[in-house]
Amino acid sequence: TRTFVSYVPSGGEDRRAVYGHFTFVRNPLRTFSVLEPGGTGGCQAHRRAPVEETAKLGKCLVAQNGGYFDMRTGECLGNVVSDGKLVRNSGGLQNAQFGIRKDGTMVFGYLSEEDVLDQANPFVQLVSGVVWLLRDGEVYIHQSQMAECDEIQTTGTFDKFINVISARTAVGHNRQGQLVLVHVDGQTESRGVNLWEMAEFLKKQGIINAINLDGGGSATLVLNGTLASYPSEHCSFDNMWRCPRSISTVVCVHEPACEPADCSGHGDCVEGECRCAGGFWRGPACDILDCGPSNCSLHGICTDAGCRCDAGWTGSSCSEECPMGWYGPNCQKPCACEHACPCDRETGSCNVT
Amino acid sequence: TRTFVSYVPSGGEDRRAVYGHFTFVRNPLRTFSVLEPGGTGGCQAHRRAPVEETAKLGKCLVAQNGGYFDMRTGECLGNVVSDGKLVRNSGGLQNAQFGIRKDGTMVFGYLSEEDVLDQANPFVQLVSGVVWLLRDGEVYIHQSQMAECDEIQTTGTFDKFINVISARTAVGHNRQGQLVLVHVDGQTESRGVNLWEMAEFLKKQGIINAINLDGGGSATLVLNGTLASYPSEHCSFDNMWRCPRSISTVVCVHEPACEPADCSGHGDCVEGECRCAGGFWRGPACDILDCGPSNCSLHGICTDAGCRCDAGWTGSSCSEECPMGWYGPNCQKPCACEHACPCDRETGSCNVT
Repeated sequence: TRTFVSYVPSGGEDRRAVYGHFTFVRNPLRTFSVLEPGGTGGCQAHRRAPVEETAKLGKCLVAQNGGYFDMRTGECLGNVVSDGKLVRNSGGLQNAQFGIRKDGTMVFGYLSEEDVLDQANPFVQLVSGVVWLLRDGEVYIHQSQMAECDEIQTTGTFDKFINVISARTAVGHNRQGQLVLVHVDGQTESRGVNLWEMAEFLKKQGIINAINLDGGGSATLVLNGTLASYPSEHCSFDNMWRCPRSISTVVCVHEPACEPADCSGHGDCVEGECRCAGGFWRGPACDILDCGPSNCSLHGICTDAGCRCDAGWTGSSCSEECPMGWYGPNCQKPCACEHACPCDRETGSCNVT
Repeated sequence: TRTFVSYVPSGGEDRRAVYGHFTFVRNPLRTFSVLEPGGTGGCQAHRRAPVEETAKLGKCLVAQNGGYFDMRTGECLGNVVSDGKLVRNSGGLQNAQFGIRKDGTMVFGYLSEEDVLDQANPFVQLVSGVVWLLRDGEVYIHQSQMAECDEIQTTGTFDKFINVISARTAVGHNRQGQLVLVHVDGQTESRGVNLWEMAEFLKKQGIINAINLDGGGSATLVLNGTLASYPSEHCSFDNMWRCPRSISTVVCVHEPACEPADCSGHGDCVEGECRCAGGFWRGPACDILDCGPSNCSLHGICTDAGCRCDAGWTGSSCSEECPMGWYGPNCQKPCACEHACPCDRETGSCNVT
């Protein structure tokens, strides 16, 4: 993540200082997720949550607010696919989309309902914005204004939405195929950028395609779980301070996910690799039981708690005979012979030969 | 920590948006530290480090750049007392100081060398600024300009240093006795506040006494180890981005410290309370060995690895006699009797009665 303070427009008397961040993501298929607010099921529950909360649940290194939502009901708007799960299908509503398909292809632009539901190479992440800012390296705002549904933004007329300066967020890609998240601080009508300035600014930074995500009071950047932007809304408890708005979906950059993500339930995912738990689960997916090269010395079977030894044997690799006075599987039973003498290690018989 | 975006001066055509943070600290004696750059010894080594680095080492929840330093040599300037250790004594150089004494008293203002070296109620934290912004609720800049040495600031003349707008940091206290850290983003001559505006702004927020710490390119705020401010210096590798400067001392707010801070070497300090390690260290300072109410059943002694049992006894509380075939302290030795018969649990003698 890079921090900028730039002047927009770049020259002239009326230039303004604009504050924000770019985040460059190398391997988006494994490190980028669209997250539902407050965890899985958040869209269905019409939940709203601060970006910090959703980001902590998703262990995001970088998180920004994502798609638009109904400020009144909390409903997620547009298409939402989160980590391979289709959460919401807008029915082909014409708005700028960003998605990643199963094979890693990044898609920017307009999608029909069939595209969204495609099963051959389905979307694993998908979020809807309003206004395709840059298309193949060129500003595409005029065309977007004619083509897109403007119902899901609530700033005012589509014209005002585009031309007012405000806080903004966007997602795009550059020539190196990196996913780029962009965040600009601001406040509607007094600070920040309009969409024309946003598009020109992204273009100058080498962005090829980009769509505009929710902005204004929703615009929030969270780094390592910590708020790193200046929200435009005042806090309800004290007008002096600024508080991040509780919003809907989040775009999240995290450590690379494992395959499978839960390491078969037998390990933790650390930087994209499963660290198997318990000492006996092995393999890249932690799905192979392995008690070591001795293979329980052929005197037991390997379980997730280690070797379970046959009668007469004990030790971590079942290589030790029962100590005197004990017998049975894993030598758990005390002998019961007269004069406290030892018994057969396997059967417990007192007729020791 | 609270985030603000305010307008300075508060009315008029030429008002500017000013971005920054206030941090309110309730129990500064236990939660505030002045840290040397890059850890203990950093001042002596003339070290410079990004605030993020020093903040991570000090586990700071909130960290800002602290005192002034020599940009050329990296030397820490002014007085520095860090966690009870006198790191640097400026010899009574007349500059605005902030310190906390052993009894918890916060001190703002000017100190003689005798004050700094006082042993009756010594400083446990001390850092030097330039300009006593607020004294007993009133702006004190004119008086500071006459009284203070201006050699340690390098912005230019003392007049320019005071009157130029720039990024600023300060430390003060409010009427409730809270320590208050303040940070304002900016860039010398184009964004931020001058010291008059800073003082008025703090006064309006109810600050009673405050001193000005290093600002400009040094001004940095780090929350939970993550950069949360917009630095004014450009990155050396790419002029487009802003990078935090490597600076000298840091003012740090952390979890309450334990007593003793290292929990006697037998535990971790969590939110001001020692969590003793190993299971047998007890007490608020983790300095009492305790193997449980049985006290090793009077058949052993308590060590930091648990009960060490006398000959003939075993088990976590030395309450079990040796199993058949074993004897000695903690039953570690196998009997060596003919016909594999058992031996005396204490001595190993084969003459069992």
